[in-house]
Amino acid sequence: MPYFDAASSAPLHPVARQALQASLDEGWADPARLYREGRRAALLLDAARETAAEAVGCRLDELVFTSSGTRAVHSGIAGVLSGRRRVGSHLVLSAVEHSSVFHSAAALEAAGGSFTEVPVDRTGAVDPSAYDRALRPDTALACLQSANHEVGTEQPVVETAGICAEAGVPLLVDAAQSLGWGPVPGRWSLLTASAHKWGGPAGVGLLAVRKGVRFAPQGPVDERESGRAAGFENIPAIVAAAASLRAVRAEAEAEAERLRALVNRIRTAVPELVPDVEVVGDPVRRLPHLVTFSCLYVDGETVLHELDRAGFSVSSGSSCTSSTLTPSHVLKAMGVLTEGNIRVSLPARTTEEEVGRFLDVLPGVVAEVRERLGAPAAPAPSAEPRASLVVDALGRRCPIPVIELAKVIGEVPVGGTVTVLSDDEAARLDIPAWCTMREQEYVGEEPADRGSAYVVRRLL
Amino acid sequence: MPYFDAASSAPLHPVARQALQASLDEGWADPARLYREGRRAALLLDAARETAAEAVGCRLDELVFTSSGTRAVHSGIAGVLSGRRRVGSHLVLSAVEHSSVFHSAAALEAAGGSFTEVPVDRTGAVDPSAYDRALRPDTALACLQSANHEVGTEQPVVETAGICAEAGVPLLVDAAQSLGWGPVPGRWSLLTASAHKWGGPAGVGLLAVRKGVRFAPQGPVDERESGRAAGFENIPAIVAAAASLRAVRAEAEAEAERLRALVNRIRTAVPELVPDVEVVGDPVRRLPHLVTFSCLYVDGETVLHELDRAGFSVSSGSSCTSSTLTPSHVLKAMGVLTEGNIRVSLPARTTEEEVGRFLDVLPGVVAEVRERLGAPAAPAPSAEPRASLVVDALGRRCPIPVIELAKVIGEVPVGGTVTVLSDDEAARLDIPAWCTMREQEYVGEEPADRGSAYVVRRLL
Repeated sequence: MPYFDAASSAPLHPVARQALQASLDEGWADPARLYREGRRAALLLDAARETAAEAVGCRLDELVFTSSGTRAVHSGIAGVLSGRRRVGSHLVLSAVEHSSVFHSAAALEAAGGSFTEVPVDRTGAVDPSAYDRALRPDTALACLQSANHEVGTEQPVVETAGICAEAGVPLLVDAAQSLGWGPVPGRWSLLTASAHKWGGPAGVGLLAVRKGVRFAPQGPVDERESGRAAGFENIPAIVAAAASLRAVRAEAEAEAERLRALVNRIRTAVPELVPDVEVVGDPVRRLPHLVTFSCLYVDGETVLHELDRAGFSVSSGSSCTSSTLTPSHVLKAMGVLTEGNIRVSLPARTTEEEVGRFLDVLPGVVAEVRERLGAPAAPAPSAEPRASLVVDALGRRCPIPVIELAKVIGEVPVGGTVTVLSDDEAARLDIPAWCTMREQEYVGEEPADRGSAYVVRRLL
Repeated sequence: MPYFDAASSAPLHPVARQALQASLDEGWADPARLYREGRRAALLLDAARETAAEAVGCRLDELVFTSSGTRAVHSGIAGVLSGRRRVGSHLVLSAVEHSSVFHSAAALEAAGGSFTEVPVDRTGAVDPSAYDRALRPDTALACLQSANHEVGTEQPVVETAGICAEAGVPLLVDAAQSLGWGPVPGRWSLLTASAHKWGGPAGVGLLAVRKGVRFAPQGPVDERESGRAAGFENIPAIVAAAASLRAVRAEAEAEAERLRALVNRIRTAVPELVPDVEVVGDPVRRLPHLVTFSCLYVDGETVLHELDRAGFSVSSGSSCTSSTLTPSHVLKAMGVLTEGNIRVSLPARTTEEEVGRFLDVLPGVVAEVRERLGAPAAPAPSAEPRASLVVDALGRRCPIPVIELAKVIGEVPVGGTVTVLSDDEAARLDIPAWCTMREQEYVGEEPADRGSAYVVRRLL
C-alpha cells in the first residue's frame, strides 16, 4: 500500500526508531540536573546538537531544538521582529511560503506591522530581484523557503540571501522540505526545519540563528535551549531526529538520483496517460521526490478517495478537499489550475514497481471521476451556434463550473463568448487556467448579482 | 542506583513505552489527511483525547495536547488574559507557583499588566481567603497549583476555585505534580499538566479549558488542536501519555498508600538521624511521594554530589546548586531554611529497601560535608564572653555565613548579640531560619557598607 505523501510526513526512519528506543532509557531525565541520570541526558542532548549543527552547517550555540517546525518558524520570526523592532516592523515573504510563515505574518499585521508578499512565476519560483524591490528601510526580516512544499520548486536562496545580506536584512530560510536532502547554502541568517519531514519523529523542530542576528525571544521564556524554546526538552525524540538526519544525509545523494528518475517518469507519463492534465512546478530546479499535477474536470476529494481505495496515499491542493473551500494559496499564486490537484511525494525506498502501479491505476481513476461528473470528452459541436452563451453555475463547487464551460464552448462559433456565472472561489483560478490549457481566450471577470461572471472567447 | 527525583521527571512507565512503540507504526502520518495512514493517526489521537479527558474530568472538546506542560501553562494564561482583556490585565498567583507561571506573569508585566502574589504559610499553603482579598475588578485570571513541586504541600484548590467562581474570575490549576495521583476536584476553569511527570514521555502537555471561559489563543495559530496548540501533533507521544496516565491512575491508590508510608518513614527518621534538620511542607495535606528537608551548615551542591556518588539522585532548592545564586522562590516564600536543602521524590515502585539505604547513607554524607566546612557540632563556650560580636562573612556563600554565626554564638553571653555581615542572598533567609531552629532571637537586618548586617541575640 504505497504512501506517496512524504512531504506531509515521512514514515519513521529505521535509524530514528532505533535511536528513540535506545534513548528512552537514557534520555528521560532533566538535563539541567547534577545527578547521573541528568548528566546522561545532557550528554545525549549535546551530542544530538552537534550532529544537527553539522548537518545544518552552523555553530553549536546557534542551534536550538523546538517542539515542531511550525514552532521554529513562529519563534524565529517573532524573535527577529522583536530584536529588530527599532528598524521597523515590516516583513517580506514569498507568496508560496508554508502556512506557518503566513500565520506569523498575520500575527504581525494584527499587532500593527505589515508585510509584503513577493509574487512567484508559473513554476512557483521567486525572482531574487523582486526581494530587492520589496525590501524597505523598515524591513526587519525576509523569509524564503528553500523549496516549495506543494510543487517542489527550489527557490533561489543563495541569490536572495546575498541580496538581503547586502541590504542588512536577515533572511529566514524555511528548510522543512529540503534539509534531509542537503544543507542550505548561502548567507542565510536563520534556518528552520522539522524532523518528521526527513523521517525523524514528530515533536522536534530546528531553529538556527546565526551569531550577530539581533534576536529577542518572545513570550514567556525559561532557561532551556538558550532561552529560545521553553519547556522540558524531549531528548529521546531529539536524539532520534539528529541520528536520522545524519542517516538520511548519508544516503541522500543516491536516493535523490533514484527518486528523481521515478519522478521524471511520472512527469512524463501522466500527461501521456491522462488527457487534460497540467504538471506544475519547475521541471529541473526542484526537490527530487515531489511532483504535482492538476486534472481538469475532476474534484480533488473524490480522486483522493479513489486513489486511497486503490491503495495510494497522496494529497491535494484543491479547494474541494479542504474544509475552507479555498484552493491552495501556492497554486493560486502560481496561477495554475487548482482543480483535480494531486501531489505525489515519494518517501525514501519507494520502488519502481510502486510508481508503475500508480501509473497503471491513475488514468482509470481520473476517467471514472470525470464520467461520474459528466465531464465532456471533447466539446460537442452544436447544430445552431449562438454568438454568446451564459452558463449559470451559481452554488456549484469546483470542478463543476469548469465542466459546464467545457460542455458548451462548442456551441458558440469561433470568436463567440461563453460567460460563466459562479460564486466558487476556485473558478477565479481555474477558468483562466482552463483557457490557457485549451488555448481559448480568457476575456476577464465582471461583477454579477451573485458571484462573478467569467467571460471566455472561443479561439478554436 | 535509586532515582529519587520523580517530581522533576519520572522514568518512562512500561505502558508508555509499549504504547509509544506500537504507535510509531500507526501514528506518524498527518491526522488531517484523508488517506488511510491519516485516518489511522486521527483515530489514535481521538482515542488518546478521550482517555486523557476522562482522567482530567473534562469534555473531549475542552482538552488539547500541547508540546509540554510549560507550553500548556504559557498558552493557557496568555489565552485567558487575551480573551478577558476587556475585564482588565491583572493576574493573581500564589508565591509558590512553578516558574512557568512566574514567567507568564513577567511577560504580562512587560506588556503593561500587573500581578499579585498571594503569600503562603510556613508549610507552603495558601489561605483561600487571601485569594479573595487579592481578586480585583480588573483581575482577568487567577492561578493556583494543585500541589507544590518543591515541598509537596497540597493547595486548597476546591475552596479557592469556589471563591474565584463566585467572583467570576477563572482559576487555572497547574496540576503538573498531582494529575497522576487523581483528578483535580472543584470548579476550576483551566487545568494544565505534563506527561513526563507521571511517567509519560517528554513532549506532551495537557491544557483543558472549560466551556464558557473566554479564551483567545495568542501568537500565530493554525488549525490543529482547536487552534490552541500550533504545529504537527506528536501522536505516538500523545498516545503514550494517555495510556500511561490511565495506567498510573489504575495503580494510584495502592501506590500512594505505599509511598506515603515510605515518605513518613523519611520524615520521621531524618530529624532523628541528622542533627539540625528542618523538614518542610505540610505533614498531612501533601503529595504522597515527596518530602523535602533542609540541613544547617551544609551546601546543597556538595551534598547532592556526595549523594550522587553514593547512588542517590535527588534535587535541591538551595542557592548553592543553582547558577543564579538565588535560593528557591518556594522556600523563600515559606520563610524556611534554604541551605542544605534536599528534595526526595519517589517514583512508583520505589522499594522499602532503597529508602532504607538512603537513610543509612544520609547521616554520614551530611556529617562529612559539615566537617569539611568546619561546621560547629555545638557552640563553643568562650572563656571571655564579649557583649557583642561582629562576624565578617562578606564574599562568602551559603552556608558559610550561618556556619560562622553558629561558631561564635557561644562567645557572647545570653542577651548579647552577634552581627553577621553578608552579601549572600541566602543569608537573608537562612539566618532567621537558623534562629527559629536554634531558638535564638533574630533581631533584624540593617544596611551595611557592603551587603547587610544581620543581628542575632543569644537567648540560650
